[in-house]
Amino acid sequence: MSEPNQSETPTSDPGASFTRTRLFVEDDLASGVGFTLGPDQSHYLQKVMRRGVGDRVVLFNGRDGEFWAQLTDMRRGAVSLSLGEKIRAQSPEPDLWLVFAPIRSAAVEFMTAKATELGVSRIVPVMTARTNAEQVNTRRLRANAIEAAELSERLTVPEIDVPVQFTALLERWPTKRRLLVCDETGTGRPVADVAGELAENPRPIAVMTGPEGGFAPDELDQLRDLPFVMPVGLGPRVLRADTAALAALAVVQAAAGDWRSGRGVNQD
Amino acid sequence: MSEPNQSETPTSDPGASFTRTRLFVEDDLASGVGFTLGPDQSHYLQKVMRRGVGDRVVLFNGRDGEFWAQLTDMRRGAVSLSLGEKIRAQSPEPDLWLVFAPIRSAAVEFMTAKATELGVSRIVPVMTARTNAEQVNTRRLRANAIEAAELSERLTVPEIDVPVQFTALLERWPTKRRLLVCDETGTGRPVADVAGELAENPRPIAVMTGPEGGFAPDELDQLRDLPFVMPVGLGPRVLRADTAALAALAVVQAAAGDWRSGRGVNQD
Repeated sequence: MSEPNQSETPTSDPGASFTRTRLFVEDDLASGVGFTLGPDQSHYLQKVMRRGVGDRVVLFNGRDGEFWAQLTDMRRGAVSLSLGEKIRAQSPEPDLWLVFAPIRSAAVEFMTAKATELGVSRIVPVMTARTNAEQVNTRRLRANAIEAAELSERLTVPEIDVPVQFTALLERWPTKRRLLVCDETGTGRPVADVAGELAENPRPIAVMTGPEGGFAPDELDQLRDLPFVMPVGLGPRVLRADTAALAALAVVQAAAGDWRSGRGVNQD
Repeated sequence: MSEPNQSETPTSDPGASFTRTRLFVEDDLASGVGFTLGPDQSHYLQKVMRRGVGDRVVLFNGRDGEFWAQLTDMRRGAVSLSLGEKIRAQSPEPDLWLVFAPIRSAAVEFMTAKATELGVSRIVPVMTARTNAEQVNTRRLRANAIEAAELSERLTVPEIDVPVQFTALLERWPTKRRLLVCDETGTGRPVADVAGELAENPRPIAVMTGPEGGFAPDELDQLRDLPFVMPVGLGPRVLRADTAALAALAVVQAAAGDWRSGRGVNQD
């Protein structure tokens, strides 16, 4: 498995698709269109990736698919591009949410990037009774998600919600979506069994993890009373919240998500 | 799911087993025995966890099970303990290896800790054609593994091998052990299918990930010719090596490992 690390290590292996420089942009994309990148992405192409006029990069915006783009002008902080052929059409990506109680910010940033690689579509911070983190830097999480989407060949960037209170989350929950709660109390059913059932009988899914210290007893009681909640167990060891989230997402994607197909065929 | 973080955040919730201070020691353990910790663990108990004479901690050594131990003397850098009742007998843990080509050291340390939480028994660094990392700090990885084992309620610490060359690894491979190679080329079978087969027909398992840039073509050819190799696919996105390793380990443990049972019953 590759270890792309474009932001630090430009490589020169043109045959490997993961070494293509991919950028997420907000602009509309269509072949023949030209536009200019903002200062951050311009700096990244000029100084970090050392690209020059005539070089090609890949752009996507989450709506219009993925395009080649050629660098046409390299003013400082304002790189201009001309869009070439469409590489991939926009196609549906998994509908999978991650709901997490904020923990240490490094772990949250890590979890956001990894969850993006694993294919989540939406990331929802939830404030619980034992949540110590006072605020969540959603701007920073969006930057983590964008970088991970660029590197992982996604065509979208997951949405990052503003934090929501535990009770409000449950009151507003779309009841058709199954909420797989990573349950450290040992009463959850094995995650493979739950994921297998959801493969047989597909529903939209969310994975939820608690804070340092776990959910409070009355929170667990509330969760267990809800018909859309499915407590899942992740084996006999105690997992950190970020490990639990990634493990549950991997099992869900492998058994009931889009991992049953291989890598896309239209990638290069 | 809990986020224990003993090294930074002593908690005072005695009801939660994950807040017990657990220490891995090399000494033989038996009820009634007394001994003195070395400077690092003594400092940790005195200064980080702020424990005092009479407080109890939990000890394990990977051989004799898990014991309560009471602090009996608190000299600077030399905390003495007296072992009390056995909490858990030593019991078999999963036989699951992680073989990885070293990448950035932060990612390797992270992967080691997370793999320990997920239940691996042995971690094998392998040097491949495209491996950039010149050396692996196995001492540091052992420290990461010990800390993760302490926090995750494991009764063992995974072995950390000295790095081995790719060809030597394959020549010496125990052929009954299936080697699940995370395959970024898209030709691997879905990991859930492979894990499901191994659940039906159990064998010892290892998960292997490549370096930044992936395996070289001749390495992939060598792997594909070996009867014990099973290339596995992890879906349509490109995963970083550490993400791939953890995702594959989670799926293997969930489908064919010890995650089908809940948390242990003898834990507290």
